[in-house]
Amino acid sequence: MNDLGEALALGAGKIHLLGGGTPAQIPAVQDIWRARMAAMISDEPDVFDAMLSNYDQPAGNPHFREAMAGFLNREFGWPVTAKNIGITNGGQTAFFMLLNRFAGRMTDDSHRKILLPLVPEYIGYGDQGVGRDGLFTARKPRIEELGDRQFKYRVDFENLNADAETTGAICVSRPTNPSSNVLTDNEITRLSDEAIRLGVPLIIDNAYGQPFPGVIFEDVTPVWDEHIILTMSLSKLGLPGTRSGIVVAAEETIAELSSMTAIMGLANNNIGQGIVKPFIESGEVLKISHEIIEPFYRRRSAMAQELAHELLPADLPWKMHRSEGAFFIWFWFEGMKITAKELYDRLKARNVIVIPGNYFFYGLETVDDDWKHRDECIRVSFTQGEATLREGFRILGEELANAW
Amino acid sequence: MNDLGEALALGAGKIHLLGGGTPAQIPAVQDIWRARMAAMISDEPDVFDAMLSNYDQPAGNPHFREAMAGFLNREFGWPVTAKNIGITNGGQTAFFMLLNRFAGRMTDDSHRKILLPLVPEYIGYGDQGVGRDGLFTARKPRIEELGDRQFKYRVDFENLNADAETTGAICVSRPTNPSSNVLTDNEITRLSDEAIRLGVPLIIDNAYGQPFPGVIFEDVTPVWDEHIILTMSLSKLGLPGTRSGIVVAAEETIAELSSMTAIMGLANNNIGQGIVKPFIESGEVLKISHEIIEPFYRRRSAMAQELAHELLPADLPWKMHRSEGAFFIWFWFEGMKITAKELYDRLKARNVIVIPGNYFFYGLETVDDDWKHRDECIRVSFTQGEATLREGFRILGEELANAW
Repeated sequence: MNDLGEALALGAGKIHLLGGGTPAQIPAVQDIWRARMAAMISDEPDVFDAMLSNYDQPAGNPHFREAMAGFLNREFGWPVTAKNIGITNGGQTAFFMLLNRFAGRMTDDSHRKILLPLVPEYIGYGDQGVGRDGLFTARKPRIEELGDRQFKYRVDFENLNADAETTGAICVSRPTNPSSNVLTDNEITRLSDEAIRLGVPLIIDNAYGQPFPGVIFEDVTPVWDEHIILTMSLSKLGLPGTRSGIVVAAEETIAELSSMTAIMGLANNNIGQGIVKPFIESGEVLKISHEIIEPFYRRRSAMAQELAHELLPADLPWKMHRSEGAFFIWFWFEGMKITAKELYDRLKARNVIVIPGNYFFYGLETVDDDWKHRDECIRVSFTQGEATLREGFRILGEELANAW
Repeated sequence: MNDLGEALALGAGKIHLLGGGTPAQIPAVQDIWRARMAAMISDEPDVFDAMLSNYDQPAGNPHFREAMAGFLNREFGWPVTAKNIGITNGGQTAFFMLLNRFAGRMTDDSHRKILLPLVPEYIGYGDQGVGRDGLFTARKPRIEELGDRQFKYRVDFENLNADAETTGAICVSRPTNPSSNVLTDNEITRLSDEAIRLGVPLIIDNAYGQPFPGVIFEDVTPVWDEHIILTMSLSKLGLPGTRSGIVVAAEETIAELSSMTAIMGLANNNIGQGIVKPFIESGEVLKISHEIIEPFYRRRSAMAQELAHELLPADLPWKMHRSEGAFFIWFWFEGMKITAKELYDRLKARNVIVIPGNYFFYGLETVDDDWKHRDECIRVSFTQGEATLREGFRILGEELANAW
């Protein structure tokens, strides 16, 4: 983040940034938030003033929580009230609190871990444990070859090996950052059943999913239940600078998150909630998601895949995870002579920034040393425009040809 | 916070809120921030868009950090650069990170504590430890009687008893929430020397102090040095809803805070920095602080003291800490028959909310059971207007007469 933040903030020059998770600047969406803020200032100055000058409840603004609950009622029929909605300073902070709440050293002195049923998984969880023991126990995926240079990860239920003694929660992101994998409805149902069997929550990171921002290219059903903790975010609506995470969970969990927010930071920032609330109330956030944001990223994904076919060496067996959502193409270079980390270094030397895939395979305890897959993948963001992608892929193609 | 947040957000009705730490709504200041945001949208829409749509560096926006460093150079001559400035999601989050960095179980398996040289101290630090052992070791103050119903706390240097083995840092707030006490320049110098002797940082919470917001009624000198960690905030400029904390510290400490921010929440929210940056660059923030904010709270403090003299029983020996800054009158009811907690309950039953003082006396390890002082104080906020204060003090006066 630091390299990336510095480059973005100070002006990156000729660096081709294919590493970052920052959402694309979508002018039609930026226009909406800019107009909303201007309207708030001119039409509801008292609302604007209160947004800046009040500490809100640590669980979030009561009106925003009401709006979210009503929205989820209408959209999905979920039996949630404002008490099932908690706000955090961004989705990552929600995970900092949730992961440490449900794993690590527990109040009865037992140790529990978060089960990641499938890695690669979001890199941002990896270092969040405040204790010294590893917070995660992860499982290798099954890899399903789809042809046409595509593959898809599947949960390997045969080898899940979760026990009620040591599991604190099951955690997945859907769509997954980095691979864009979207767990199927069947997989989610089985994980949900497993969570019930273990008596632990199933945490689903829905930052890219439905109902907003809808950066998901598969037709799957969002689920929620008392034992499911669903996290959402305003970031992928183009508002990452507001750090606004939304947690949908059992009332008790929201109360705990609220206490943690009060202790760690007194309250949340109010601005994201203030900007978006009327769009949640009116449902217009769905229109923004489905008519602007989702098509935008779907086109970007298609373009990135086309450019890969055009610019990566046709005679090498490179593959991509099927693009099912989020902002990334996840490449698999099976049999490449160098590791993804070495490829990253070579690309960086040529001003192309990607993320080497090995960082996303954390929490694996008993993996065979000969499981090369984790050193054969990279994550490439397609949030940048065609010029950046084209130049980045051209150089990636050359380095692959050199390295393979 | 929860009672308070709910009451504020949903409309408090007839409740007289004298408990909260929310800054007053100062129209002249609100006008400035509203005009600034409107100007950003109309004149610099790209800056506005970037503020909402970029993840910034976890240490904060580079331009804002530059601006702060330059401002502190000019104002105080401190030899700081942008690398000495770190941003957090509010001052409380800075403390969550700093206190756990410098105390608790250390990497060498030793345990260290934060030395509070004087309690009462800010309640918000009290529960921030992520480990199980107490994070604090606190010392009773010397109480100096000043006459005219006033007293002042002094650091009891004779009984500081800090050792290099177990002290992780020394921590003070200046002005102090709750008592409004401002440690003298001499006290700060001695604490700074003590920190050097122990080889630990001196953390100074400057949320109310100089150079902004300047809610400090004593003429003291702000200090910074490589071993001092000074925290500041935009909250008391009327922007608590933006959750913007500023840490001035050695480069290494800022780098550590930056890593912690990245792990805990990816990045900070950008809005507070975006609003205030030009006012830091131009120095206009000083004008706002010294010509609007400081006189406002000085008047409120004077009014609250006058109302106390008018409305509290003249025949009872109630006292106030000398009002030296911040938003609070700190009452001492020496010899009262009931505890401050019981007084709080009685006041709450009559819709007057104050904060019982005992919560601010944490970390005391070896205090005599007969030290009644900690159960004889309450904190009263004067951020609300005269009507609220007058009615609250009228009822407080009646309850004191009943209880004493």
